[in-house]
Amino acid sequence: MNYRSVSVIGIGETKMGRLPDRSLRDLIAEAGNAAIADAGIDKSLIQALYMGNFNAQYLAFQGHMGSLAAEVLGLRNIPTVRTEGACASGSLALRQAVIAVQSGLYDVVLVGGAEKMTHRDTETVTTGIASAGDFELEASVGVTFPSVFAMIANRYFYEYGNAREAMAAVAVQNHANGALNPDAQMQKEITLQKVYDGVKISDPLTVFDCSLVTDGSAFIVVAATEVAKKITKQKIIEIIGSGHAGDYITAAQKESLTTFAATINAAKEAYTMAKVTPQDIDLAEVHDCFTITQIINTEDLGFFPKGKGPEAVLTGKTARVGGVVAINPSGGLKAKGHPIGATGISQVFEVVKQLRGEAGPRQVPNAKIGLTHNIGGTAATCVVHIFREAK
Amino acid sequence: MNYRSVSVIGIGETKMGRLPDRSLRDLIAEAGNAAIADAGIDKSLIQALYMGNFNAQYLAFQGHMGSLAAEVLGLRNIPTVRTEGACASGSLALRQAVIAVQSGLYDVVLVGGAEKMTHRDTETVTTGIASAGDFELEASVGVTFPSVFAMIANRYFYEYGNAREAMAAVAVQNHANGALNPDAQMQKEITLQKVYDGVKISDPLTVFDCSLVTDGSAFIVVAATEVAKKITKQKIIEIIGSGHAGDYITAAQKESLTTFAATINAAKEAYTMAKVTPQDIDLAEVHDCFTITQIINTEDLGFFPKGKGPEAVLTGKTARVGGVVAINPSGGLKAKGHPIGATGISQVFEVVKQLRGEAGPRQVPNAKIGLTHNIGGTAATCVVHIFREAK
Repeated sequence: MNYRSVSVIGIGETKMGRLPDRSLRDLIAEAGNAAIADAGIDKSLIQALYMGNFNAQYLAFQGHMGSLAAEVLGLRNIPTVRTEGACASGSLALRQAVIAVQSGLYDVVLVGGAEKMTHRDTETVTTGIASAGDFELEASVGVTFPSVFAMIANRYFYEYGNAREAMAAVAVQNHANGALNPDAQMQKEITLQKVYDGVKISDPLTVFDCSLVTDGSAFIVVAATEVAKKITKQKIIEIIGSGHAGDYITAAQKESLTTFAATINAAKEAYTMAKVTPQDIDLAEVHDCFTITQIINTEDLGFFPKGKGPEAVLTGKTARVGGVVAINPSGGLKAKGHPIGATGISQVFEVVKQLRGEAGPRQVPNAKIGLTHNIGGTAATCVVHIFREAK
Repeated sequence: MNYRSVSVIGIGETKMGRLPDRSLRDLIAEAGNAAIADAGIDKSLIQALYMGNFNAQYLAFQGHMGSLAAEVLGLRNIPTVRTEGACASGSLALRQAVIAVQSGLYDVVLVGGAEKMTHRDTETVTTGIASAGDFELEASVGVTFPSVFAMIANRYFYEYGNAREAMAAVAVQNHANGALNPDAQMQKEITLQKVYDGVKISDPLTVFDCSLVTDGSAFIVVAATEVAKKITKQKIIEIIGSGHAGDYITAAQKESLTTFAATINAAKEAYTMAKVTPQDIDLAEVHDCFTITQIINTEDLGFFPKGKGPEAVLTGKTARVGGVVAINPSGGLKAKGHPIGATGISQVFEVVKQLRGEAGPRQVPNAKIGLTHNIGGTAATCVVHIFREAK
């Protein structure tokens, strides 16, 4: 098919973290208005809003988040929809927006995500997150995500050898990157020993192997590239690839726990559309809900051969500077934070910052092609996008 | 733009009602497999799943419903997304599916909706439904939907004269239609007096002015019309119009409480695309969360002049047989039931049944063009689709 090219022309995000004084409305207002201002366009050009949110209904009694965001941002009668696919909710909003703009239906669309989590107690947050799996077959019998990903880590050790040090090194690297990102929730460097000594969550995971509970919001303005050139003076970052795939929701049904079929299929679609290979990617925001997840994903995205993800981390191949592909220069879910429904959009925020050359002290040198990778649940949903400055 | 034509080639739904022995998985399996069987296609042709659900996260601790449905239906690695826009969640799934098939990205897509509500107590269900409004500004201070729509009814009386009898007549008519629908939750006819004598919910609404709390699921198979002709022997019902619009989420912000801007704008988009006028519509499934809502919507859809909706009901113009336009031949949300995330898809089920001429005792005579109208929250989201048998 002859799709229209789609680009990102504006980005905005809040500081990520524990933000007790800020409501969902406050977070949406800040990030949404920042993205529109960054694009330098009049609000009246925005024709639709796609809004990623995972679980404000359980955590904050708030559904209908597309409509809420449109009201907060003064967008009146435009069509809105909330997309949800667990931790991939934000990227799903972008995926649907890309399809709608590609098709010619809309020229300019706002895409956002927001989540408010830190005001609830640990049990409530854990129950809310567990709804990303199958309640009947998993959560109701005590299967939570740290336990599933601990099982995945142990299985990975069995199939490919012990990767404990590499997992800890993922945490160390992401915290080092996060320390350079003013929006990151965690801004201190940590050591391997600190990861090992962390509170045990589910063996082999300690608290430092786990992503964070975070309040935050991120928005981007997306436009048909041909239209973008007429309405903005901002650098135009083209979405050259888009992919979306799924897998069984329950861990028990999956063909493999150490190779994520959804990542492989979504990446294949995105690479094919973009006409690039994994070796062309300069930087990638990769879903690191747990340290083992990042390692597996960097293999399934084709950056490293299967089983070689751990070695890649330990030999500096994922480093922000001097590596083969800079993984999570923002700090990732691990250090920047994981405001679930906003995460996929915040990944785009980072990639656009890097491709514009505006990432300041955390700038990846010679960043030409960037990728975002976002999974939901036990890799039951995966969305991949690839970006490059428009010609 | 030169969009591809999109059609419905298969439909399935469960019986609607209080179904204590059936889980979300059970409901999805029945309706989803029925739709695929009705299309007579092999599952392997389905390339994506769009899933409407309003609030299983709060009511049943279940998110990630697209992925869940794909697993239940054995659809493996296809991309899935849940759409949510309060009571319009199901129609939003169809809207996104239509855009994706129009664009050429997918040829065959499954679209579903499901909701499980009756297992929770009244307070929990009310809190869950209230998340369709603004929690901070409405629900948290006690504004629930019956109170908002009672206010709308009173305002309507002030602007256009007392419509109490017409509201009761809406309930009577929808119950009479529901009595002919084997899938309907309520299958008994009622009288005007019974409506007046019902338990007061919020003046002037009695319990008989309110839609139901319902468990249920509905699915449809959607395909590019050019592809549909090659893969199914089923009658092909083309989606000739699609419209989607929004409005402020909070009642307080709206320009009018008695004219729904989202309905007007969504209908305009759908009529324009379909190249038909309101007078061309033979039957319409119209969002009747409360009896007053149906009256206002039949005006805003252009079936009757503003303020003349009550008279239209009282003079038989909305009757299934012998009227101007048959409104809610299924029984509507009022009698068929309102399994929130499934409602928009169940509306399509009914329109397709009618246009195929398969509606049995409730068949609308000479049904050629049908319309579905679905709103979310205080008419803050609206989706309209128009259907006709493909040439």
